[in-house]
Amino acid sequence: MTGRQARFPRVGQVSRRSMLAGAAAGVVAPVAAAALGGPSAAAAPGRSKPGGQGETKRITVYAEELPSGLYGYGLEPGKATVPGPTLEIWEGDTLEIELVNNTDRRLSIHPHGVDYDTASDGSPMNDSFNEPGETRTYVWRTRPQSQGPDGFWRPGSAGYWHYHDHALGSPHGTEGIAKGLYGALVVRREGDLLPDRQHTVVFNDMTINNKMAPHVPVLEANLGERVEFIAIGHGSNFHTFHLHAHRWAENRTGYLQGPDDPSRIVDNRDLNPGDSFGFQVIAGDGVGPGAWMFHCHVQSHSEGGMSGVFLVRNADGSMPEGAQEAIDRYHQHGGGHHTATGR
Amino acid sequence: MTGRQARFPRVGQVSRRSMLAGAAAGVVAPVAAAALGGPSAAAAPGRSKPGGQGETKRITVYAEELPSGLYGYGLEPGKATVPGPTLEIWEGDTLEIELVNNTDRRLSIHPHGVDYDTASDGSPMNDSFNEPGETRTYVWRTRPQSQGPDGFWRPGSAGYWHYHDHALGSPHGTEGIAKGLYGALVVRREGDLLPDRQHTVVFNDMTINNKMAPHVPVLEANLGERVEFIAIGHGSNFHTFHLHAHRWAENRTGYLQGPDDPSRIVDNRDLNPGDSFGFQVIAGDGVGPGAWMFHCHVQSHSEGGMSGVFLVRNADGSMPEGAQEAIDRYHQHGGGHHTATGR
Amino acid sequence: MTGRQARFPRVGQVSRRSMLAGAAAGVVAPVAAAALGGPSAAAAPGRSKPGGQGETKRITVYAEELPSGLYGYGLEPGKATVPGPTLEIWEGDTLEIELVNNTDRRLSIHPHGVDYDTASDGSPMNDSFNEPGETRTYVWRTRPQSQGPDGFWRPGSAGYWHYHDHALGSPHGTEGIAKGLYGALVVRREGDLLPDRQHTVVFNDMTINNKMAPHVPVLEANLGERVEFIAIGHGSNFHTFHLHAHRWAENRTGYLQGPDDPSRIVDNRDLNPGDSFGFQVIAGDGVGPGAWMFHCHVQSHSEGGMSGVFLVRNADGSMPEGAQEAIDRYHQHGGGHHTATGR
Repeated sequence: MTGRQARFPRVGQVSRRSMLAGAAAGVVAPVAAAALGGPSAAAAPGRSKPGGQGETKRITVYAEELPSGLYGYGLEPGKATVPGPTLEIWEGDTLEIELVNNTDRRLSIHPHGVDYDTASDGSPMNDSFNEPGETRTYVWRTRPQSQGPDGFWRPGSAGYWHYHDHALGSPHGTEGIAKGLYGALVVRREGDLLPDRQHTVVFNDMTINNKMAPHVPVLEANLGERVEFIAIGHGSNFHTFHLHAHRWAENRTGYLQGPDDPSRIVDNRDLNPGDSFGFQVIAGDGVGPGAWMFHCHVQSHSEGGMSGVFLVRNADGSMPEGAQEAIDRYHQHGGGHHTATGR
Repeated sequence: MTGRQARFPRVGQVSRRSMLAGAAAGVVAPVAAAALGGPSAAAAPGRSKPGGQGETKRITVYAEELPSGLYGYGLEPGKATVPGPTLEIWEGDTLEIELVNNTDRRLSIHPHGVDYDTASDGSPMNDSFNEPGETRTYVWRTRPQSQGPDGFWRPGSAGYWHYHDHALGSPHGTEGIAKGLYGALVVRREGDLLPDRQHTVVFNDMTINNKMAPHVPVLEANLGERVEFIAIGHGSNFHTFHLHAHRWAENRTGYLQGPDDPSRIVDNRDLNPGDSFGFQVIAGDGVGPGAWMFHCHVQSHSEGGMSGVFLVRNADGSMPEGAQEAIDRYHQHGGGHHTATGR
Repeated sequence: MTGRQARFPRVGQVSRRSMLAGAAAGVVAPVAAAALGGPSAAAAPGRSKPGGQGETKRITVYAEELPSGLYGYGLEPGKATVPGPTLEIWEGDTLEIELVNNTDRRLSIHPHGVDYDTASDGSPMNDSFNEPGETRTYVWRTRPQSQGPDGFWRPGSAGYWHYHDHALGSPHGTEGIAKGLYGALVVRREGDLLPDRQHTVVFNDMTINNKMAPHVPVLEANLGERVEFIAIGHGSNFHTFHLHAHRWAENRTGYLQGPDDPSRIVDNRDLNPGDSFGFQVIAGDGVGPGAWMFHCHVQSHSEGGMSGVFLVRNADGSMPEGAQEAIDRYHQHGGGHHTATGR
C-alpha cells in the first residue's frame, strides 16, 4: 500500500504575494476537512454525526518551497501554507496521503497519534521519505478504544494531533519543521461536538506559525460561536500557551465530559516541542466581544513577539467597540504601547 | 462598572524594615479571605459551606513600590507584600477590585481563570491599566459549570488561579511581574474542603516569591493540619515544583474526588510561566513531623537557591526533634552542608 | 529502624568491560522485582494478583563508582548499573533498603511518592546520608488510598516513581544524579496489570540513561507483548518524550481505566527534572513489528543524541524485515542518514 512512486513534475513558482496571502489565512484550513468528506469546520456545528466511520480517504499533499524561503504542505499545487492544512478524520477511518515533493530537498510527513507501519513512519531511519521530486504514499490508520481479553483498555485514536516533516536536513526533520513543514491532525470520536470555527496555533521556536508580532494574523470568531483551538509545540524552546478571558478542560476534548469530570480547568498550558492539545470555547462567553490576547506566557517570549489577537466580533459580525483600536495597538507594538512614564 | 477614576494621593514611604517583615509573612495571607467574607483560611476547615454564592465583594488593592525596589499589591496602604494577598471567593461570586496605583509607573491587575470584559483585561492592548497615581476598578466574575442546549459542558470558574500586573514597563507586564506584582486567586466550588493553613509558592524566574535560599521564609504547619499549597509560575524560566514526603492528585482540587478518580498522583510537577495549581495535604501524614524540603527539581535551580523548608511541627505546635538543626543547615547552606569529602 | 550502621569494606574495582555490559543491560532490570518477591516483570503478565500486600521487604543496595567515572546503584557488589535496578513493590508494602556506600564520596538514596520519616529523607538537610564507606538503612512505606472522616480522599502510593541520590557533591545531589545515581520505583495497586517487559528511560541532562545516540541500548520486545515504559526526567534541561507508533493515557497507570476515562491520549509528553510517568503498550499493536524511534522531541536534543530504538520483533522473536537496516542507520547516524541533497 505504501512505496515509492513515479516522480512528479515540479510546479512553477507562485508569486510571493499570493503565497503570503495563503499563509496568512493558513491558521484556518477548512479546505482539508471538506476535501476529506470528514467533519467540516464550516458545516453542522453542534453534536456531531459520524459521516464516514471506517472509510478510507485519499488525498494528495504537495510539499513546496515558498518564496519566503519557508516550506509548506498544501492540498493543491502552488497552495502550500504554514501551517499546512488541518487534516480531520473520524476515529476508524484510514487516510492515504500521496505526498508530492515539489522541492529539491529530501522530506517526509510523520503523524502523531495514529497507526502506521514502518514504511509510513516518515523517518529516514526507516527509509521512509521522499527524495526531491519524488511522490510517495503514506497510510495512517485509526481505531476506537477497545478492551482486550486481559482487561487491558487500549486507547483509541481520537485526539488533537499533528503531523510534520521528519527528514529535511537531518534524520529528525529539524530544518523542515523550523521552516514550516507542520500542520494539525484531528481525529474525532462519534459524539464529539463540531466547532463553528477552527484555529491552529503552532508555537515553533520563537514564532507563532512562523510569524511574530505584530505580523501574527488575527484569529476571528463571532460572539457565541463554538471555536476550536488546536495548539501545537515545535522547535527547541519551551512555551506556555495563554488565552485571555477563555478557559478549557485539560482532558481529551478540552470540554467537560460531564459534571463529574475531575479535569483541571486551565487558561494557560505548557506547549512544548512535539506536544499538542485542542479545546473548544464559546467565543466571548461570559466576557463579551472584543480583542483578546493570546500569547506565550514565558515573558521573554511574549516580549519577543509570541503574541497574537483573538478577535471576538459581535454576534452579527460587526466590529465591537474598541476592538479596532486594540488591534491597531497590537500592530503598532505587538500588544500595546510601551509606557511613556519612565523612571 | 469599570473605568478610570479620580487620582488617588500617593501614600508615604514606609520603612524598609516593616515592609520586609510584611513581605516575609506574605506567603500566608489569610487577610484577604477574611476581608472578602469568603472562605477563611483560618476558620472552619473541613467540608465547606458556601457563605456567599452569587454575591458581589468589593475590595481596594494598593499597588506600591517597596523600599527594596520591588513592587507589591496590598489590601491597605503601606502593607503591600510579595506575593500579594491571596484573593479567595466562591464560584458564582463577583469581585470588584478598586486598584489604587500608588507608584509612579503604569501598571494593572490581570486575573487568570475568571470572567472579565475588555475594560478589566488589565492589558495595555485594551487600554486597561492605571496610570501613575490613578485609581481604576476591575471587575472579575465567576460562575458554576453548566450544560448548554447542544450538550456542551462549559467549565466553571473554580480553580487555583492567580493575578499579576500586565502593564508595568511593557504591554506584557514583564517588569511588573519580575518585581513582585503577583498573587494567588482561589475560586472555590460548593463542597470543596477548606484548609487549616495556606501557603503560596511562586517560582518567579530564579526565585521563590522573589527570594532565594537561605532567605525563603519557612512555611509552617502542625502535624495533622490540612495545608493548602498554591503554586504559581512566572518569568522566563522553566521549573518543576517538588515537595518532600507529601503528594497530591493532578486534578482540579489536588485531592482525589473519590476512589475511582483516575488522576495521576504526583509529588513533583511542572510549574512554568503563567501556570498555577493547588493541592491540599495532611501535614506529616504517614511521615511524621519535621523539616521537609520543597524546591525546584531543576538541579541548577535548586543549587542556585530555589529551595525552602516546609516545617511540620508536632501536633501541639512544639518543635520536633532535629527540625531546628535542619533549619539551621538550610540557613547556613540552602539545604544542607556541602560535602567535605573531596576527590 | 533507621540509623547509621557499621562501615562496610569497599569492594574491589571490577573490569571496565563487565561494568559497561551491566550498564548496557541496565534499562531492563527484572532482577530487583524478583529479589523483592514483588510483581516480577518476567512472570505472570496480565491481571495482577497481589503477592505481598502489607509485607516488609528488605534489600541491600550497593552504591559504587563505575570504571567509566559514573556512579551506580546495584543489588550486588560489583553489579551497579545506570539506571539502578527497578524497585517494585505492592501498595501497602514497606521497603527497607540497606544502602552500602562503596565509594569515597558522601551520597544517599531519596525516593519519590512513598512515605518516609526525616531519617530516611536522603537529604543532608536532615542529616540523612551515607558517609564514604558507611552503611545506612532507609525505610520507605506505602499505603492504599483512603477516605478521612472529613471526606478527604488521601492519595495512595501507587505510581511510577523513582529514586535518586540527594547528597553527592551538594545538598541537592546534583553531581550524584548527573553521574548516574538514579532508578525507577514502581508501586502497584491490587488489580494493576503486569507487563511482559519493562524499560526504564531516563532523560538526564542531554543523555538517555547517561548515554547518547548511537550508543543508547536498543529496547526490545516481541510483537503483542505488553511492554511497560517508565520515563524519568533529571538534570537541568527540559525535555519531551516521544515514542513512534504507540500511545498511552495520561493517567495513573498509562492505560484507560475504562471506556469513560476522560484522560488525554498522548504519544509525546513533557519529561522534566524530578518528574516521572509510566505506561503500558502492546508492542506493535496496529502498526506491526519494526524498529521504532523514541527520542526527545526538543529538536536540538534529538539532533544532539537523545534518540534511541524500540525494536519490536516478530511474535516468534525473529527479526522483522528492514529492522536491522534501520538499526544500522541508527548506529551510523543516530537515527538515519543526513541528506545528501544539499542546497
